[in-house]
Amino acid sequence: MQTTERARPLRVGVAGLGRLGRRHALNLAYRVPGATLAAACSPLDDDLAWAREALPEARFYADYAALLADATIDAVWIVTPSALHAQQIVDALRAGKHVFCEKPLSLDVAECERVVEEARRHDSQQVTIGFMRRFDPSYRDAFAKLRAGAIGRPFLVRSQTCDLNDPGGFFVRFAPQSGGVFLDCTVHDIDVARWLLGKPRTTRVFASGTIALHEGLRAAGDVDNGVAICEFEGGALAMFYASRTMAHGNDTSSEVIGTAGALAIGHIPRASRVEIYDALGVRSECTPTFFDRFEEAFLIEAQAFVAAVRAREGVGVGGQNDEQPAGQGATLEDALEATRIGLALRESLHTGRAVLL
Amino acid sequence: MQTTERARPLRVGVAGLGRLGRRHALNLAYRVPGATLAAACSPLDDDLAWAREALPEARFYADYAALLADATIDAVWIVTPSALHAQQIVDALRAGKHVFCEKPLSLDVAECERVVEEARRHDSQQVTIGFMRRFDPSYRDAFAKLRAGAIGRPFLVRSQTCDLNDPGGFFVRFAPQSGGVFLDCTVHDIDVARWLLGKPRTTRVFASGTIALHEGLRAAGDVDNGVAICEFEGGALAMFYASRTMAHGNDTSSEVIGTAGALAIGHIPRASRVEIYDALGVRSECTPTFFDRFEEAFLIEAQAFVAAVRAREGVGVGGQNDEQPAGQGATLEDALEATRIGLALRESLHTGRAVLL
Amino acid sequence: MQTTERARPLRVGVAGLGRLGRRHALNLAYRVPGATLAAACSPLDDDLAWAREALPEARFYADYAALLADATIDAVWIVTPSALHAQQIVDALRAGKHVFCEKPLSLDVAECERVVEEARRHDSQQVTIGFMRRFDPSYRDAFAKLRAGAIGRPFLVRSQTCDLNDPGGFFVRFAPQSGGVFLDCTVHDIDVARWLLGKPRTTRVFASGTIALHEGLRAAGDVDNGVAICEFEGGALAMFYASRTMAHGNDTSSEVIGTAGALAIGHIPRASRVEIYDALGVRSECTPTFFDRFEEAFLIEAQAFVAAVRAREGVGVGGQNDEQPAGQGATLEDALEATRIGLALRESLHTGRAVLL
Amino acid sequence: MQTTERARPLRVGVAGLGRLGRRHALNLAYRVPGATLAAACSPLDDDLAWAREALPEARFYADYAALLADATIDAVWIVTPSALHAQQIVDALRAGKHVFCEKPLSLDVAECERVVEEARRHDSQQVTIGFMRRFDPSYRDAFAKLRAGAIGRPFLVRSQTCDLNDPGGFFVRFAPQSGGVFLDCTVHDIDVARWLLGKPRTTRVFASGTIALHEGLRAAGDVDNGVAICEFEGGALAMFYASRTMAHGNDTSSEVIGTAGALAIGHIPRASRVEIYDALGVRSECTPTFFDRFEEAFLIEAQAFVAAVRAREGVGVGGQNDEQPAGQGATLEDALEATRIGLALRESLHTGRAVLL
Repeated sequence: MQTTERARPLRVGVAGLGRLGRRHALNLAYRVPGATLAAACSPLDDDLAWAREALPEARFYADYAALLADATIDAVWIVTPSALHAQQIVDALRAGKHVFCEKPLSLDVAECERVVEEARRHDSQQVTIGFMRRFDPSYRDAFAKLRAGAIGRPFLVRSQTCDLNDPGGFFVRFAPQSGGVFLDCTVHDIDVARWLLGKPRTTRVFASGTIALHEGLRAAGDVDNGVAICEFEGGALAMFYASRTMAHGNDTSSEVIGTAGALAIGHIPRASRVEIYDALGVRSECTPTFFDRFEEAFLIEAQAFVAAVRAREGVGVGGQNDEQPAGQGATLEDALEATRIGLALRESLHTGRAVLL
Repeated sequence: MQTTERARPLRVGVAGLGRLGRRHALNLAYRVPGATLAAACSPLDDDLAWAREALPEARFYADYAALLADATIDAVWIVTPSALHAQQIVDALRAGKHVFCEKPLSLDVAECERVVEEARRHDSQQVTIGFMRRFDPSYRDAFAKLRAGAIGRPFLVRSQTCDLNDPGGFFVRFAPQSGGVFLDCTVHDIDVARWLLGKPRTTRVFASGTIALHEGLRAAGDVDNGVAICEFEGGALAMFYASRTMAHGNDTSSEVIGTAGALAIGHIPRASRVEIYDALGVRSECTPTFFDRFEEAFLIEAQAFVAAVRAREGVGVGGQNDEQPAGQGATLEDALEATRIGLALRESLHTGRAVLL
Repeated sequence: MQTTERARPLRVGVAGLGRLGRRHALNLAYRVPGATLAAACSPLDDDLAWAREALPEARFYADYAALLADATIDAVWIVTPSALHAQQIVDALRAGKHVFCEKPLSLDVAECERVVEEARRHDSQQVTIGFMRRFDPSYRDAFAKLRAGAIGRPFLVRSQTCDLNDPGGFFVRFAPQSGGVFLDCTVHDIDVARWLLGKPRTTRVFASGTIALHEGLRAAGDVDNGVAICEFEGGALAMFYASRTMAHGNDTSSEVIGTAGALAIGHIPRASRVEIYDALGVRSECTPTFFDRFEEAFLIEAQAFVAAVRAREGVGVGGQNDEQPAGQGATLEDALEATRIGLALRESLHTGRAVLL
Repeated sequence: MQTTERARPLRVGVAGLGRLGRRHALNLAYRVPGATLAAACSPLDDDLAWAREALPEARFYADYAALLADATIDAVWIVTPSALHAQQIVDALRAGKHVFCEKPLSLDVAECERVVEEARRHDSQQVTIGFMRRFDPSYRDAFAKLRAGAIGRPFLVRSQTCDLNDPGGFFVRFAPQSGGVFLDCTVHDIDVARWLLGKPRTTRVFASGTIALHEGLRAAGDVDNGVAICEFEGGALAMFYASRTMAHGNDTSSEVIGTAGALAIGHIPRASRVEIYDALGVRSECTPTFFDRFEEAFLIEAQAFVAAVRAREGVGVGGQNDEQPAGQGATLEDALEATRIGLALRESLHTGRAVLL
């Protein structure tokens, strides 16, 4: 439970005010003790108009450089298009800010490496990449049980990221920038597998896929359903599934199998504790989107970021944040690995061959 | 989604800083946009010491009268021992404050009626009794489906309040004040049944019970497991079960059965989305306490109270509170009915006879 | 596993060839090692025509007395209208046959007692009343766990018998003979509760009910949804629910709660191991009728009857029957108690008062 | 329902009386209307001693040739070691018998092809390979829903065969003959995937595996946990998982995903309808072995075989067999394909490369 609040609040500036950016902004503004949403930045007038209504106590910038120039800002929260992430992190580090950045770090390994290198020159600054599943209470519970030895030695992770079908096919138009289903979706499962298995080195991957509904993806070399196998050094394995075409909702689940048991997380994507009994049987409605499924994870992720910064400063953040898993966010190195593996999956999909890493 | 924040924050003073009071205080301080935890009141030094650490921006009072005398306070949040509720509500109303009070209103019908009467003289002030289940997202989901006709005409509610066994038996020592298991636990189920069935008048009840483990209850005329049937005008029915002796956790669930289907809420009291596979089978761990089960409900309840006050004032509260079910909290009349029925159940338990209301 | 088959097969004659009678006949003819379906009896031409096709090796009788006069028959299997049960059992006993009879024994306590008395004069003959739930593998599993101490001392049973709504309302026309919902349906739950709780004496009951859909029941003093509470000597309790109006299927479930845990049997009435994922969520289809739910129980019940007769004769039946729970069928005394309690529930429903036994 | 019984019973001779052979023999002897267990054959004295006790009405042979020479036998039921299957089928066909043979047909593609060719010369004789999952009621239910269009066009099957860990490691000693985990276990999943997807041609596979517990497998080039991906002509996909090391039981499940929904079969391997509530949470015990999981499938498989023979003879079998899915057993061609794909998976495991078919 919350106990005290001593340190000056961490002043955060959000860059990017799309759907996910707004959610982060509101969390930081109203639900993260120890943090203040001090600024918001977007080049879009609509976004800024929304922000003036919803975030009355913040300053507003149309330009990322101006946000970085605001000396009152301690940390930036990057929720911009993926292609901007790497350079914006570098710029933020050079401006002396702590950085939270949504995944992916970059779709280019060299660029990922450049950011990692830059960050090594700023080792007093916190940098976290937003793999929010690590902060979902159920994933955390499984992780804690795993570490406590509940299932012996883990050797296989099965993990999936499956979205409700969007007949409009937003992701089809987005395919050229997203990097495809493995870099856009499976990258979460890659991170989960590495996290749960203790970060073994990936040695070989194979991937395949199919277009079930969205023929428009073919031009981009993408698929709407992808499957993959990863081999890790030491013999551990992972199986991944990603889909854009689910009929029932966002179905994100993972399973870790060990020598003495297994843990499943999110087997049935129940939207609530309600069961409906009618002529069709007994049913649970499902979480429609990842926002619904991971609402709490996004909040805890933000609380943990504040706690991580406070831990660096040697002060307790006070409040319930002290309970948060400060050291558990994905590092730049984790994000680099996720990109490296995701690219190998895409290469395997395109060549039909197993890819060695 | 949160959109704006215009009104001056509602300044709330909490009275009572026990376990539940502290939870309410922290919610109001950090998680309810539109509200400020402006004051906290307890006669106990320990409570106030805790509050000075956890709630640094509040004023502190050792005396309820002093809290009411603080003209900057708009609303009081009563989480004191049950025996004090009725008079404290009356005093708060007379002091011009809005009032949130934890259940029960009172264990005495006449006292309940006195408060109802007083409140009628203060009809511009919001008074809500804390039946938090009405704000649990799953209960709300079921309620909405019910109102939308998903199960036809509802005619039977089955509802239970079952606590993890406390070998220490706190509730045994508490039995003389609690009013017994029907007034302490089943009162929630009574409120749920009335709410789901559209508040029909109760006409007859029968209750029974047994002492499974806690012989110390016998002196207080109480039981650690109680069962009951309620008949309502128009033919609807309710069945209740309350237990202090569960081995697996807090198991609070309800079911509403209609002419075209049924809705179950909380059938298996899963603590998370994790399933454990091991030599014992496949299992879900359970919510240990009602705090764990209803954490979110307590928060939404507070947000809804703020929204209800704002609605009275004709201003939007802004932010996510606008989504909250302002008009859905239990009224004093609801609380009076719950007490009346709970007392009849206790009478039936003691006499072995059905009791007419 | 099946090991040997030594004894001459038990020659069984079935009386009554309605829907349930036919199922019993086919089980005895084809699926019960150690038994032969040697004769079938019905006053209806259609039934006998069916039997000649389906049971080519049997003898056929239009008259029950003729069946009893067939000296080659060792046992009779009574699946006739309830009103005939008591006298037919008496006649069969006097003819020297073992007897299996579907529930209920009789709706009249005095008649039940007359049969019990008669049976005492034929104590070398097996008499079993068909409470098939005792032979359902899941009920048996729970019973075994209970006896092994898995949940400590059991003190509460909750049990329900809920049928899919039959818009045609067969049971409405049947209401005058069925004895009403408590004697027709709840009688199973009464037997389950007594069986699971170790057959304590019932001391007091209360029942209520409502007509949700079938107004035609009113003339017969019956309801389509009934609820009840039973108190047992020693403090144990039972809660019952019976319904004719379920939208989702036959939902028969029971729960036994003890001082160290609980066992639930049949919580969700899944028809199979299939789950359907679609726009409505994730769902399981439900067992439509008690035939579907208890198909296996009816078969094991028959196998157990043969084993019980063989055990009386001191010979192994051979085969898998040796695994069956020979001594677990409901006795005439159990059936008498179930009727006595069912009648008390009906009285309570009609009077609105608790009934002492 | 059973209606009539006209044809002379099919006289079956079982070859092989190990654990699974005995189960088949008892089913044929006591539970398959229309069939008679007329003979049993094993070279082992213990097996024949068991048979004389359990199957008193059969003839007994120590030699397969003698069984085939018995002119009263219509069909042979081969449950011998896998290496014998192919030649025994050929011999049985030449002896004019119908043939049921347990999987696998052979671990050698050329030998499979030889049997297929021989069978073409005996097209009036029924030959079925024992992929029993096709007869499990839940698999059948899913298959029927799929065919009825419930999930649109199916494009992905995920299927697993996971056994409870056997610390004694019988399968380790058996590894040289079994062909390894893909040919011994995954072969079922291959058949399920082909069956559910409409038998598309397999074009490419990739497999990997690990030894989690049983180092003794290394010498045989086998693993105790294997994963695989199959690509089919037309774009459909399959993912397989096989394990010898489960802690919780036999966990055999499949899932088929289509453009409009998905069907899961056997998600949680519940042993019964009982749920246990205790200090560990709420749990279901699991099916310990495939015998427990597929007991009913083995029986229906036998009933369906009899129905298939009868259908060839143009006579109804009568009885409940008429309901069985006569045409749904795996053909020799199905078994050949399963072997071909299983061998490709093993090659991929050994080479680390995708294998084209």
